[in-house]
Amino acid sequence: MPLDLNSDLGEGFGAWSMGDDAAMLDIVTSANIACGCHAGDPSIMRRTCALAVAKGVRIGAHVGYRDLAGFGRRAIALSPAEARDEVLYQLGSLEGFARAAGDRVRYVKPHGALYHAAASDRALADAVVGAMIDFGGGLALLGPAGTALASAAAATGIPFVGEGFADRAYTCEGTLVPRGTEGAVLHAKEAVAQAVSIAVSGTVRIADGSGSVPVAATSLCVHGDTPAAVEMARRIRETLTEAGVPIESFA
Amino acid sequence: MPLDLNSDLGEGFGAWSMGDDAAMLDIVTSANIACGCHAGDPSIMRRTCALAVAKGVRIGAHVGYRDLAGFGRRAIALSPAEARDEVLYQLGSLEGFARAAGDRVRYVKPHGALYHAAASDRALADAVVGAMIDFGGGLALLGPAGTALASAAAATGIPFVGEGFADRAYTCEGTLVPRGTEGAVLHAKEAVAQAVSIAVSGTVRIADGSGSVPVAATSLCVHGDTPAAVEMARRIRETLTEAGVPIESFA
Amino acid sequence: MPLDLNSDLGEGFGAWSMGDDAAMLDIVTSANIACGCHAGDPSIMRRTCALAVAKGVRIGAHVGYRDLAGFGRRAIALSPAEARDEVLYQLGSLEGFARAAGDRVRYVKPHGALYHAAASDRALADAVVGAMIDFGGGLALLGPAGTALASAAAATGIPFVGEGFADRAYTCEGTLVPRGTEGAVLHAKEAVAQAVSIAVSGTVRIADGSGSVPVAATSLCVHGDTPAAVEMARRIRETLTEAGVPIESFA
Amino acid sequence: MPLDLNSDLGEGFGAWSMGDDAAMLDIVTSANIACGCHAGDPSIMRRTCALAVAKGVRIGAHVGYRDLAGFGRRAIALSPAEARDEVLYQLGSLEGFARAAGDRVRYVKPHGALYHAAASDRALADAVVGAMIDFGGGLALLGPAGTALASAAAATGIPFVGEGFADRAYTCEGTLVPRGTEGAVLHAKEAVAQAVSIAVSGTVRIADGSGSVPVAATSLCVHGDTPAAVEMARRIRETLTEAGVPIESFA
Repeated sequence: MPLDLNSDLGEGFGAWSMGDDAAMLDIVTSANIACGCHAGDPSIMRRTCALAVAKGVRIGAHVGYRDLAGFGRRAIALSPAEARDEVLYQLGSLEGFARAAGDRVRYVKPHGALYHAAASDRALADAVVGAMIDFGGGLALLGPAGTALASAAAATGIPFVGEGFADRAYTCEGTLVPRGTEGAVLHAKEAVAQAVSIAVSGTVRIADGSGSVPVAATSLCVHGDTPAAVEMARRIRETLTEAGVPIESFA
Repeated sequence: MPLDLNSDLGEGFGAWSMGDDAAMLDIVTSANIACGCHAGDPSIMRRTCALAVAKGVRIGAHVGYRDLAGFGRRAIALSPAEARDEVLYQLGSLEGFARAAGDRVRYVKPHGALYHAAASDRALADAVVGAMIDFGGGLALLGPAGTALASAAAATGIPFVGEGFADRAYTCEGTLVPRGTEGAVLHAKEAVAQAVSIAVSGTVRIADGSGSVPVAATSLCVHGDTPAAVEMARRIRETLTEAGVPIESFA
Repeated sequence: MPLDLNSDLGEGFGAWSMGDDAAMLDIVTSANIACGCHAGDPSIMRRTCALAVAKGVRIGAHVGYRDLAGFGRRAIALSPAEARDEVLYQLGSLEGFARAAGDRVRYVKPHGALYHAAASDRALADAVVGAMIDFGGGLALLGPAGTALASAAAATGIPFVGEGFADRAYTCEGTLVPRGTEGAVLHAKEAVAQAVSIAVSGTVRIADGSGSVPVAATSLCVHGDTPAAVEMARRIRETLTEAGVPIESFA
Repeated sequence: MPLDLNSDLGEGFGAWSMGDDAAMLDIVTSANIACGCHAGDPSIMRRTCALAVAKGVRIGAHVGYRDLAGFGRRAIALSPAEARDEVLYQLGSLEGFARAAGDRVRYVKPHGALYHAAASDRALADAVVGAMIDFGGGLALLGPAGTALASAAAATGIPFVGEGFADRAYTCEGTLVPRGTEGAVLHAKEAVAQAVSIAVSGTVRIADGSGSVPVAATSLCVHGDTPAAVEMARRIRETLTEAGVPIESFA
């Protein structure tokens, strides 16, 4: 089965940069592009969309809480209606730059605290999906399989793309070991092996060594914040290709 | 000839309201809706778009400098490229809410300091028009006739809609007498008369009484900030109708 | 015993106004002035401080979550360290305007969602108090008696001023009946009576009619958002005076 | 004569960092600390103030236009009254963190577009100085000698500290050759030589080689944005010391 590789891109802001977008766009097939509210600004959005299209990478709206100082990593107690409006705003704001680059927004991925909140809160997940229906255009939703986000998408017919993480340890329930816990983040070698395991067998080893657990991922999230992260992403792609896994955007 | 009536709407922000949008949407045919950067927030944008569509009023993106504290009335020294990106961002952000309401954004009107700056600075006017071309979809540009905005639109084939003001005095050159000058803002009775004059003869009386000057307006801007302004707008519409001027959206 | 009257003031933002600050400053003895993060901007802060000093009203920093669109009414998941930094930032920002008016900031009152969060979360309450200690200058803390805020102040020797509400119903535990519950907000006549009861007997009637409960308030919060609220505040002050309660700032 | 070395510090924002503040604080004697409006956030302000005090470096408020996306480098058409309020707000906001670190704000330096605008516009310069008088506490003003900022300070008795630039070419009028012009930015070797020339002879060579021009600088601005800039700053300090110039804060 083919595997999509996605990464969070366009996460600079004004004079501040983050990560090596150009390098990552040679590696991934889907670009989660920040929409100016947790990161990104209009000029960065234009540049990132143009670069993605030039490299044949699919554009997704990386929507998050409106909190630049907190990089969208701090939950804000929005009502579901407010969350729906916020997501719709950000989704539209990216569409202009996707069009300017000759394409359109193809999918939505919640970012940071919104990703986690919407995965466990069905009303919030429905808000994200509601904004996608408001916007129309056949968008897909990218997020963690087996969560409220998946259920919300299923309830409305929105295509859902489950994602896995190469460099994060998993619990026996198939959820991520929380950051901060020892062993939560895998070393490069383990991450490469886990990527192959997800792609080939649809499972990952459980962090405590007690066996393996299914991870229904048709997309794999890789990071590009540091030169080491970019290098790891490159090795993941190479190793997957050597293992015969086609690297392709989801349909 | 038919005349369009436009008004600046959706100009609240969060807990703060401004004007009586519902009343104005019974009067005008085009709604210049703020896009969250000089005024408006996602929830207000949704509400205003829904109300506009429900009343058959055309949705336009009222794009402005990103300066909530200054209400977009203070020029910011953006480069033309930055201005183009900013306009494209705002235009897209409104599109989502227009779609949610069952319509789409039909035109763009620059707001406040951007309106004045782009009217006199061709590079900035080109930036506004460039964003409209990036976005596509057959948008029209609403602004002051005979200015850089009109020229920029003409150079690219973007439809331009010239607008006049009922309640503002004009100079012999057909430009507005600056606010703050004595007599710059007309009383209700004069404003109603000027509206009819613009619609019927395409001219206005010059502020100093030295004759009249052509004003090529197919749209008339009316205000709704205060109950008195709403009442004046209503009388303008009634008087125009009595004078046989059809009140219709521009094509 | 004398009673202080406090009100939330300076809550406009840019072109948007809220409430009648001048009228309220003739009624209250303590002004909770917004610091530009949930409401207020530098020019409003200057104006409100100047007016407060001119009318002999004490200046307090009304510190809140940085969320203008949400008016500080939506909790943001700040760490205690982030909350302490945020409060210190806002407190300092107001100090300049208090000095310009010839006075200094005398007390701190958390606003909106921060008020409620810090009342029930001791780490957050410690963060608020920590910022006050960082700032120095003999500040008092204004908030609900019997909560984490009171304990945090007591633990450090910061003077604590308990506040009561004239127009809000109380539970048998002496806490406010949540907004949205029927009867949560009292009518004008009941509010005036409750103000006198708090001042004279230190108790309020329980919402369900089952008796009364102590409310240790040396300050009473009154609102000025609407003309009716201003009028109610004026009647409360008059009635308290007639009942022989001296209206004075806390020490 | 002793020379002060100043640098722009605390210019990160949220998840984004800029420059190596710790390294620069070993080199300079005055820290221009961003106040959260063009750069910096409350947590960065606390950290930078604490580090400055720990290293015996004087704290200054680096006040700028409120435009994070533009890093304060784009002029905003503020009225003088608005500019005064803005500067006072930022100055106060830093004071809290200076106090938390055991010191207080000692001086003000305008940043970016505000630096240039206030140097040439006396009303804006008066606004900056007016905010300093509002704040009180014996603040000094750091800026380019011979400009409106110097005149505004002189007119009010505010101490003025003229600053020079090691790495920028000067015109025959003693002003900086604008960025973008060829030769505007000096190479490391020339910059070190220019630093010594400013300190020892109070002059710099004119960019076109036509002689030298006086630069009345008691402070020298050095940059720390890149590792190379930090290294240059270190060499400037070493070379000045070898030339017998005492490196000391201005009084």
